[in-house]
Amino acid sequence: MPTLSDIGEFGLIARIARLAPSAPTVVEGIGDDCAVVRVFDRLLLVSCDLFVENIHFRRAQATPESIGWKAATSSLSDIAAMGGAPLFCLVSLACPPDTEVGFIEAVYHGLVDAVSQWGAVVVGGDTTRSPDGLVLDVMVIGETIGNRYVSRRGAQPGDVLAVTGLLGLSAAGRSALERGKEAPALIRAHGRPSARISEGQWFSACVQVHALIDVSDGLVQDAGHLAEAAKIGVDIDPTRLLVDPELGRYCAAQQLDPYEFILTGGEDYELVFALDANNCEETLRGFRREFHTEICTIGAFSDAWHGVRVAGRTPMHRGFNHFKP
Amino acid sequence: MPTLSDIGEFGLIARIARLAPSAPTVVEGIGDDCAVVRVFDRLLLVSCDLFVENIHFRRAQATPESIGWKAATSSLSDIAAMGGAPLFCLVSLACPPDTEVGFIEAVYHGLVDAVSQWGAVVVGGDTTRSPDGLVLDVMVIGETIGNRYVSRRGAQPGDVLAVTGLLGLSAAGRSALERGKEAPALIRAHGRPSARISEGQWFSACVQVHALIDVSDGLVQDAGHLAEAAKIGVDIDPTRLLVDPELGRYCAAQQLDPYEFILTGGEDYELVFALDANNCEETLRGFRREFHTEICTIGAFSDAWHGVRVAGRTPMHRGFNHFKP
Repeated sequence: MPTLSDIGEFGLIARIARLAPSAPTVVEGIGDDCAVVRVFDRLLLVSCDLFVENIHFRRAQATPESIGWKAATSSLSDIAAMGGAPLFCLVSLACPPDTEVGFIEAVYHGLVDAVSQWGAVVVGGDTTRSPDGLVLDVMVIGETIGNRYVSRRGAQPGDVLAVTGLLGLSAAGRSALERGKEAPALIRAHGRPSARISEGQWFSACVQVHALIDVSDGLVQDAGHLAEAAKIGVDIDPTRLLVDPELGRYCAAQQLDPYEFILTGGEDYELVFALDANNCEETLRGFRREFHTEICTIGAFSDAWHGVRVAGRTPMHRGFNHFKP
Repeated sequence: MPTLSDIGEFGLIARIARLAPSAPTVVEGIGDDCAVVRVFDRLLLVSCDLFVENIHFRRAQATPESIGWKAATSSLSDIAAMGGAPLFCLVSLACPPDTEVGFIEAVYHGLVDAVSQWGAVVVGGDTTRSPDGLVLDVMVIGETIGNRYVSRRGAQPGDVLAVTGLLGLSAAGRSALERGKEAPALIRAHGRPSARISEGQWFSACVQVHALIDVSDGLVQDAGHLAEAAKIGVDIDPTRLLVDPELGRYCAAQQLDPYEFILTGGEDYELVFALDANNCEETLRGFRREFHTEICTIGAFSDAWHGVRVAGRTPMHRGFNHFKP
């Protein structure tokens, strides 16, 4: 009898998608960052993300505020990855009865902070006992801007792969916490990441952006999702990846490979996307003018192969895949 | 430092409600069965319910299909308790990697079955590893019928308390499973309860129904919520409570008190409501004609006291309250 560790997270999602029937009101169903549903002749975005103690976070390495903030950001980032705006959140919380009230209030403070910055509101949820460990599930409902959104499916052969910001900081921050090292910028990137909501909306208004996803599981994994959703291939050119100076210093001091963090570290919540190669530099300049944020092309899509490559080779390790050992 | 077991589930919800700001688009926020939000000038209902292994169910006493079915029904029942219609569901699932794929597929089968009977669709969710035990969180988005809904807040002094169907069967079914006794109707009521979606919609169209809630935590607890939300009192008259014949037989054979199950057993998902005393018998007759289902008045609201009483006395035990010992 196969177990979840045999088929992995994405094998499980494919099986669930097969057994759940769809409907004409479902514009994007199981398999994208967000579901897109038609309600009252308009499009709504809905998504949820679980945040489980000792899987997604360890209490010893996180403040309660950052646990709440990150749980919310992970869901908000799914709205960013469609180019939408968050409106409402529901929060489900399970924890042991001996948990201190002040701890849970601080978790909610962090969560409400993350949600409020986009004008969204926590409107409900559920609270229950758990046998051990904290479980948070944040569900977010968002709207599209002018009924436009960018799915992960639209990449075309010849498109370039591009990414916002700098990658690997969150994973390096976790490494610094685990090793007890000082690396304030990395630890802050790990504890208080931002969802690229405004940037996502800018991309959804830009016809040259063909497909979009957030870097939650790691660049290789998430760029791979863009390629696989379009049934084509993508090649990441590591020489084009920018290395954050503090990440570089931390890795040099610890004798670690910064590209390991950049390629497979998750939870940066940057946006990675397929961009029409025509006039792509002009699009990137427009983005930089608007957001004063790094953005660069880091690879190319092709129909000459299927799936994700790094410097022309199939990578050994892609990033985070639940259930896989 | 107080813990969650000191303040209980409802104390925690009150604290969360205080620290989460609201917005003009939030018609009913934290504290009702569902949130009611304004989207595109119409009202949407949103709710979620956690279902945690060894808290809400035990694998040895439930088929995987019934675990999925019950997790969905618990959320669907929140939509019923507002008088709405479910449209879309998101399902978050956390479980250990060594869980068999067939088990999880069967959980989703049960879940999809429960959701599909109302024409609603599972459109997405999240899957993740858990250190141990299965956690399900089912989020449901519903619509109101003609922008009408019934909150839990509208009970008035002089209203009668009424309830659909027969209570206590689910809790007695759990007791039968725990004791290894044969009681097919009770065990079925425990494993495959129904959400009263159509009945809820009928109530939302009936101006004499002032306040509505589903019996998920137990009659005393949930009738208490109706009274407390209106800042008045309610008295349950146990002599008016109908005893299901199989429940009666089971309790006689096991030397158990059926009223214990009826008053405090949860998960029946019947609807309990405050009804205008004027012509209330006519309303009940109309309901019986439509649904061929039991419905009866079982108590009265008053402003002479605050909270819930049973036969004029404050009950020792109200029903399910997470975190409380």
